[in-house]
Amino acid sequence: MTYQQEISLHTRGHGQMDDLTARLGEIVSASSIRQGIANLAVIGSTAAIVGIEFEPGLQRDLPEALDRLLPASRQYHHEQAWHDGNGHSHLQASWLGQSLTVPVREGAPALGVWQQIAHLECDVRARKRRILVTVMGD
Amino acid sequence: MTYQQEISLHTRGHGQMDDLTARLGEIVSASSIRQGIANLAVIGSTAAIVGIEFEPGLQRDLPEALDRLLPASRQYHHEQAWHDGNGHSHLQASWLGQSLTVPVREGAPALGVWQQIAHLECDVRARKRRILVTVMGD
Amino acid sequence: MTYQQEISLHTRGHGQMDDLTARLGEIVSASSIRQGIANLAVIGSTAAIVGIEFEPGLQRDLPEALDRLLPASRQYHHEQAWHDGNGHSHLQASWLGQSLTVPVREGAPALGVWQQIAHLECDVRARKRRILVTVMGD
Repeated sequence: MTYQQEISLHTRGHGQMDDLTARLGEIVSASSIRQGIANLAVIGSTAAIVGIEFEPGLQRDLPEALDRLLPASRQYHHEQAWHDGNGHSHLQASWLGQSLTVPVREGAPALGVWQQIAHLECDVRARKRRILVTVMGD
Repeated sequence: MTYQQEISLHTRGHGQMDDLTARLGEIVSASSIRQGIANLAVIGSTAAIVGIEFEPGLQRDLPEALDRLLPASRQYHHEQAWHDGNGHSHLQASWLGQSLTVPVREGAPALGVWQQIAHLECDVRARKRRILVTVMGD
Repeated sequence: MTYQQEISLHTRGHGQMDDLTARLGEIVSASSIRQGIANLAVIGSTAAIVGIEFEPGLQRDLPEALDRLLPASRQYHHEQAWHDGNGHSHLQASWLGQSLTVPVREGAPALGVWQQIAHLECDVRARKRRILVTVMGD
């Protein structure tokens, strides 16, 4: 059995994190699937889906760590083609990953109490985002 | 067809790596699924599931690289809320990923000879860990 | 419904990126699956599958960023066992990930216009690579 639904987001730009866990739970519930998997994938190459404890400290720590290791300030070859100032956004999103698969058990996402699923905006400007959730199983 | 089973682990703390490949093979075999996928997901936000050659050198190299790039010694905002000294654990686990999907072919995980699936403890203390394995296919 | 097919590649060595998107689309099309997921997994521990805008700039930026953060020049414990000079290859591939899941919608991979799926060779020598694509759904 396969069930697919989209989550829409408006983000304000780089480093914004949105908690998708409640919406994921609703979609899994709507699917009537009791056991299986749920895949979340953002349509686009400059945002990421990540498992994280969604609390205010880590909501700052994760983008800060990304900016420290894959900083905006470096010269990226990507800029030479596009001049859109988001070479680091692409690298951050590719590195964290644009897709994540969560198990489904007893009709709900199988996550820890302090484990949430978040969308991280890596692009440098406000974006409309679509996350496709695919639930599969019995 | 969907089959789900849990792997339990006791870890001693940060940087411990456990090879899950044999257990994964047993679960895939028990599922009777010949072709499809197997998803491994740790329940919790401070551990990771990773594909790696499971040999003693890399068992040290991977945690050392994580500690070099996402070190325990930095001031994380996460600490200001929780004071549990594991801000880096969260970042390391989010970055590597808490979930991994392996193809299943001819009734077994399709992996290279030197490619294993490991659980990496990123937290700073001993933990009891549960990894949910979901096998799907025909 | 499950459909599996293999993509073969010959790579020339470290940092080579190959766009798998067209082949992925053909395999999804051949599967006749309209809605579900497609998992791509490289058989081996020193290559990665990554979502990225496949343009010449980022094809250089991503391997350069990996080499800056997980450089070949460091002393890795992996070398002490194998002396094959690819400790960084293992870390880069484990970090980026050897497997990726893409949603399938209306019989095609659901990707953004500037979002491609690429194979990245992380090993230091030419390799023959096999990527297993598993399509599941209805």
